[in-house]
Amino acid sequence: MNKKDLIQQIKQKQSFLCIGLDADLTKIPSHLLKEKDPIFEFNKQIIDATKDLCVAYKPNLAFYESLGASGWESLKKTIEYIPKDIFTIADAKRGDIGNTSKMYAKAFFETFNFDSITVAPYMGEDSVTPFLEFKNKWVILLALTSNKGADDFQFFGNEKEQLFEKVLKQSKKWGNDENLMYVVGATRPAMFTKIRKLVPDNFLLVPGVGTQGGNLSEVCKYGMNKDCGLLINSSRGIIYAGNDKNFAKKSREEVLKIQKEMAILLTNFKII
Amino acid sequence: MNKKDLIQQIKQKQSFLCIGLDADLTKIPSHLLKEKDPIFEFNKQIIDATKDLCVAYKPNLAFYESLGASGWESLKKTIEYIPKDIFTIADAKRGDIGNTSKMYAKAFFETFNFDSITVAPYMGEDSVTPFLEFKNKWVILLALTSNKGADDFQFFGNEKEQLFEKVLKQSKKWGNDENLMYVVGATRPAMFTKIRKLVPDNFLLVPGVGTQGGNLSEVCKYGMNKDCGLLINSSRGIIYAGNDKNFAKKSREEVLKIQKEMAILLTNFKII
Repeated sequence: MNKKDLIQQIKQKQSFLCIGLDADLTKIPSHLLKEKDPIFEFNKQIIDATKDLCVAYKPNLAFYESLGASGWESLKKTIEYIPKDIFTIADAKRGDIGNTSKMYAKAFFETFNFDSITVAPYMGEDSVTPFLEFKNKWVILLALTSNKGADDFQFFGNEKEQLFEKVLKQSKKWGNDENLMYVVGATRPAMFTKIRKLVPDNFLLVPGVGTQGGNLSEVCKYGMNKDCGLLINSSRGIIYAGNDKNFAKKSREEVLKIQKEMAILLTNFKII
Repeated sequence: MNKKDLIQQIKQKQSFLCIGLDADLTKIPSHLLKEKDPIFEFNKQIIDATKDLCVAYKPNLAFYESLGASGWESLKKTIEYIPKDIFTIADAKRGDIGNTSKMYAKAFFETFNFDSITVAPYMGEDSVTPFLEFKNKWVILLALTSNKGADDFQFFGNEKEQLFEKVLKQSKKWGNDENLMYVVGATRPAMFTKIRKLVPDNFLLVPGVGTQGGNLSEVCKYGMNKDCGLLINSSRGIIYAGNDKNFAKKSREEVLKIQKEMAILLTNFKII
């Protein structure tokens, strides 16, 4: 998917919500466990109930890998089931030497046909660029993450710059706002001003609203740009809103609340 | 596997070689392609031909993931086939927020029963510690990698320290030399002196000897400690030494050369 189509989706649905499909056998409603593929069945119902209200789905690979080969089958079916006009994110946080990153790119962009993948920047240029060579595919590079551990290294640096800023500056040489987004946690809204100075036009994938405590309107205040430029992710708060046969309906109610808030924000910021 | 058993293996086999099982359908001998599971068949023959001469095997996950669910089947069979007294490394370079890293740990340490996993440090403490909670399992944390891109961020810092040094110092608070190793590329032998000052007792996993141009005796000169403390990885140079029905024999010849060099080095450094 290209940037223009993503922006159009946002305007049309009045939403910039990404739903994290982190399906966990120990957390999904128990009546699904008798299904042949409980994970896919869970995802399918969540997708059916929310696809008109969100613009992206983001399966976190860990949840599928923990089930071995069957998890990969569930993932493949899930990706094939998601409507083609919705942006898909492989939350994989990969990154390795060139020939290996090339294999990962092949796995996620060709075998699975994801639109994008999250990538960790530690290994530098040749670990990232193999992902940038695919047309209409995206790298979503970790910049400033939402977790506590982000403090350990991402703020490390000198009087001139900190590591997350160095990552933003350096990676701008490898890609552009048509193939490169950044992960910026919602738990640090004040940092968005600094970040927007460095990457005014790139989309930011923002986890941490909801369970992790981030605030949506604060994030928009400092992080939104003229195209919206934000994909706000919520996972557990949405997919586990209910825990019985009506779980998908409960998820939709949760998503509707967020979408309404987003429609107001998009109007206030004159995006729609 | 614990540290004592690993050291004993090294002394007994007079080898500190790790073989990278990066099986690629486009590179393995073509006669294997008619097998039901060509990747496993390739790995099986490599393992049979080399298991008495190496102390570790390291499948790079990208090569398996690129094949989807069938790749995970091949990986599972491969891990089950490796003799239990040989150290296994999931070269996965994972790292995510706490609840996700926990899922990855479960995937690699329980579903697959690997002894260790490579982890990327960018997201800090809570992305690493879930892997450290498993008895006799290891985190192998990226410190200074062998690729060109390592220059982009790993040397970033201030007059006091660089990022890779910060990673070594900080991570020592999370684990110890019984559950934490580090990736240090063979392409930067001079850096080993600096690194050994910070982590004198930890094992180092050293890629980059062979195809990537690193020099074995240089690495030992600066990086070996009283227990050996090194696992030297070679992948393509070994597994693709031959390309016909005798490929496994060719791999063994390659490994024998390295093992003989290692036996001399272990003697010279008074490890055996």
